Amino acid sequence: MSKSIDFQTDPSQYRHWRVEYDGPVANLYMDVDEDGGLFEGYKLKLNSYDLSVDIELADIVQRMRFEHPEVKVVVMRSGKDRVFCSGANIRMLGGAEHGHKVNFCKFTNETRNTYEAAEDDSGQKYICAIRGACAGGGYELALACNHIMLTDDSTSSVSLPEVPLLAVLPGTGGLTRVTDKRRVRRDRADVFSSVEEGVRGKRAQEWGLVDEVISNSRFDATVDERAREFAARSAKPDVDKGIALTPIERHFDAGGVHYSLVEVAIDRDARTATVTLSGPDADAPATMDEVVAQGADFYLLRLARELDDAILHLRFNEPEIGIVSFHSQGDPAQVMAHEELLLANDEHWLAVEILAYWKRLLKRVDVTSRSLVAVVEHGSCFAGVLSELLFAADRSYMMEGEFEGDNRPTATVRLGAGNFGRYPMGNGLSRLETRFLGAPEMVEAARGRIGEPLEAEEADEAGLVTFILDDIDWEDEMRIFYEERASFSPDAMTAMEANLRFAGPETMETRIFGRLTAWQNWIFIRPNATGEDGALQRYGTGQRGEFDMRRV
Amino acid sequence: MSKSIDFQTDPSQYRHWRVEYDGPVANLYMDVDEDGGLFEGYKLKLNSYDLSVDIELADIVQRMRFEHPEVKVVVMRSGKDRVFCSGANIRMLGGAEHGHKVNFCKFTNETRNTYEAAEDDSGQKYICAIRGACAGGGYELALACNHIMLTDDSTSSVSLPEVPLLAVLPGTGGLTRVTDKRRVRRDRADVFSSVEEGVRGKRAQEWGLVDEVISNSRFDATVDERAREFAARSAKPDVDKGIALTPIERHFDAGGVHYSLVEVAIDRDARTATVTLSGPDADAPATMDEVVAQGADFYLLRLARELDDAILHLRFNEPEIGIVSFHSQGDPAQVMAHEELLLANDEHWLAVEILAYWKRLLKRVDVTSRSLVAVVEHGSCFAGVLSELLFAADRSYMMEGEFEGDNRPTATVRLGAGNFGRYPMGNGLSRLETRFLGAPEMVEAARGRIGEPLEAEEADEAGLVTFILDDIDWEDEMRIFYEERASFSPDAMTAMEANLRFAGPETMETRIFGRLTAWQNWIFIRPNATGEDGALQRYGTGQRGEFDMRRV
Repeated sequence: MSKSIDFQTDPSQYRHWRVEYDGPVANLYMDVDEDGGLFEGYKLKLNSYDLSVDIELADIVQRMRFEHPEVKVVVMRSGKDRVFCSGANIRMLGGAEHGHKVNFCKFTNETRNTYEAAEDDSGQKYICAIRGACAGGGYELALACNHIMLTDDSTSSVSLPEVPLLAVLPGTGGLTRVTDKRRVRRDRADVFSSVEEGVRGKRAQEWGLVDEVISNSRFDATVDERAREFAARSAKPDVDKGIALTPIERHFDAGGVHYSLVEVAIDRDARTATVTLSGPDADAPATMDEVVAQGADFYLLRLARELDDAILHLRFNEPEIGIVSFHSQGDPAQVMAHEELLLANDEHWLAVEILAYWKRLLKRVDVTSRSLVAVVEHGSCFAGVLSELLFAADRSYMMEGEFEGDNRPTATVRLGAGNFGRYPMGNGLSRLETRFLGAPEMVEAARGRIGEPLEAEEADEAGLVTFILDDIDWEDEMRIFYEERASFSPDAMTAMEANLRFAGPETMETRIFGRLTAWQNWIFIRPNATGEDGALQRYGTGQRGEFDMRRV
Repeated sequence: MSKSIDFQTDPSQYRHWRVEYDGPVANLYMDVDEDGGLFEGYKLKLNSYDLSVDIELADIVQRMRFEHPEVKVVVMRSGKDRVFCSGANIRMLGGAEHGHKVNFCKFTNETRNTYEAAEDDSGQKYICAIRGACAGGGYELALACNHIMLTDDSTSSVSLPEVPLLAVLPGTGGLTRVTDKRRVRRDRADVFSSVEEGVRGKRAQEWGLVDEVISNSRFDATVDERAREFAARSAKPDVDKGIALTPIERHFDAGGVHYSLVEVAIDRDARTATVTLSGPDADAPATMDEVVAQGADFYLLRLARELDDAILHLRFNEPEIGIVSFHSQGDPAQVMAHEELLLANDEHWLAVEILAYWKRLLKRVDVTSRSLVAVVEHGSCFAGVLSELLFAADRSYMMEGEFEGDNRPTATVRLGAGNFGRYPMGNGLSRLETRFLGAPEMVEAARGRIGEPLEAEEADEAGLVTFILDDIDWEDEMRIFYEERASFSPDAMTAMEANLRFAGPETMETRIFGRLTAWQNWIFIRPNATGEDGALQRYGTGQRGEFDMRRV
């Protein structure tokens, strides 16, 4: 599975989903093309999915928000007759490398989180209308919706059969959402997660696994009714027309990926990707009307889409790159002006969507399992929302004082109002609050310096950077850092970073990426699941897995 | 490493620690006997430790609370000249099976949590006085203390070198306590955890890694001063004399372990241990003076010590036992009477200690990675604190109505005041609050029924048991449950249970047992650490580990 994976798609290319727009209601049909999988060796039967299905779903969810702001309710249904969705394709999982499994689960989790949050962020509420079997990853699709409706007949059920059937965990938040979102009693959750056939009818509702159970004959009508009802009650303002998410311009070559505002330079020997963000190439628009007119070309939206694509590319297609080094070049004042326009108009639907996109994108950075470093050089523009990368990084370095032969503007960090709560991490805190967990007064002090260009010493005193280095030390120290970091065990880095990045309160989201993911990763390399005689490998052969019966 | 491990010890047998009692201050010296390890094949050099060292420490901490209630401050020091503690012994870890590593880390974590909580629970405050290198597990010993003092010289430092040196994580809460307890800034935590040599002197204090840095010449005097100061400020009431923790009576044979109040019956074919708790054999004492006179024979203390030992025995010595089935037989009213005496006297030091012991013991049950089931049969005494086992279990079954030929008293569940907050889980909630996360009104309803003997139907309505079964279904259903559960992949059970048991808020404690432990388990089976050419295996050979450089 080493072919390059592309996360860019558009409705003309969809093979697995279709959307019918009906005013404020969008009907989203999952209708997986058996032969449309990303790799050879498996067929996507019974509405099972692989990454190709999820890439389309992520695209739909994103376009729904930018291109169809008129939508207030999304109804997720199956396009097949007898099955809602049978979950992640098991042969695909069985054949995938460990790293792909983990990356696949992470991306699907991010997509679930994105539409789960769509109600709070954008006023788009997701209903899941289940007819037929809804198993494993299928039920996890449902769990991330805001409202689950189940047909009351003998073939419609919800289930998490991963444990009894495959000896792995539901990998997309299933266990956590059952206990923490739906608050199913833990002994019932235990029973539910150990019965292959799942739960149906009244019991599914009684246990809290679904919100409504409706007889087959009244099902479609009730779903439509509920959708209209939710749409009517929605607080989302009416918007006539969205903006088009036009194709991202990019160019791949041996040295990396080149976007209009993002340069990814790959150094394979150093196992490092240098990601350089450019500042705006023009002044900020004066009004949101102008932003709407610019559409996908608006600086902060274009940058977000390019950076998002770059990070996904690195995750999936560059597994041996251990360090992502964030740099920037441009005018910090212009970056701030663009963000300030959005913040000043945060009742405008498009401002809301662009800011929410940055929130999601920065969360994607947080859970990217590469060592992240931010490098604040002369000429850089880590200002406002871009300075969040300093706080998302595992550590940061900043140039102090004059550097010989370097006449770019002196390196500064500038905070904006957005740094104080507009882009919360998965733990619910801002990155600055997480950073200063032990010194909340530092957050307040930082708030007092919004807009100031902080040079190295000031940024250091304000606790915003890890190290400041002058011309004498810079080159050596940076070289040593990259060399040393690249020499460490990638696994140890992954695990260390996963533990250090999320201090403070845990939420359902951090539990999913922390506890659940870690256990899933563990399971994914245990012989009981993925060994030659493990349950995942033997699935479909009629033989059960053979287990090492020792408990760990 | 398959020899049977015994968790019972006493001061006459210690090889690694000594304690000097000095009124309200206890001086605890770690002075590991190189040749006193639990297994062959390694020497415990430089105050490194294996399980034998931790078993003694756990015993000391426990005796400190029961036998030396006069102690208000414990000072942990090294008995060696130049080293405080160099952490868990690496050859031991390298040679240990995966299961032993995991169990070892869990037990050491529990011991750290126990003395970390001693200040809040019993008013015993721990000072860690560091002279010399304090590395890895050594620093984790310190992190669990309430106050860390470091000598300011060129050889005294604190470090977490696991990642750079061994390609594993600090396994005893280190990363979590650095970010969440000591609230070290995350980028500094990243730097600290990636430098082998650690941090010393002023920087250690500035970064929050220690509380005080003191020059060598003033160190001992300052430590003594601090100990006397903390003792003088302690709110702990003065107690003259403790009670003796006399040896536990027990007998091992092929069928299991037999204690005075706990029967462990092992069925190897069914991979099940049946643990039956007996009710009291006499009336509850009328006063705490009588409890003191009974000492370690007091019912609830004797039961706790026996059950604690039984659980540790099952964890370490019976790895293939997948199910622990809790049963009880006795008079529920008598159980309640014993607990009520403690609750009514919860200012009395011994009542405090016994209740806190049950809190710790029940937490140990919570993190025991076996499928736990509670079976409420006729004649049982799941009352008050013992009913917590129903809520700690993954599920429970209860007898309903008459069973042919069974004339024991009808099965009941009785709640006591203690069920509502006296024995919180690691997440800070009572087991009932965790159980009814989605229905807090159920907790209030349950509170209204304190003391009532609830038969099956009532217990079911109150949500206290998973299934109630009558004489017709009982035998078949129970058989099917045990058979099915025992057939599942042990790994999948471990991971599923670790995710379902701790709904609701996460705390430092749940992070350690959830996120950190899971990542550590993952690391422990990754070739980069434990493979033939992994860093852990190669340690001491002069060769670095060879790593698969793909990020996961």
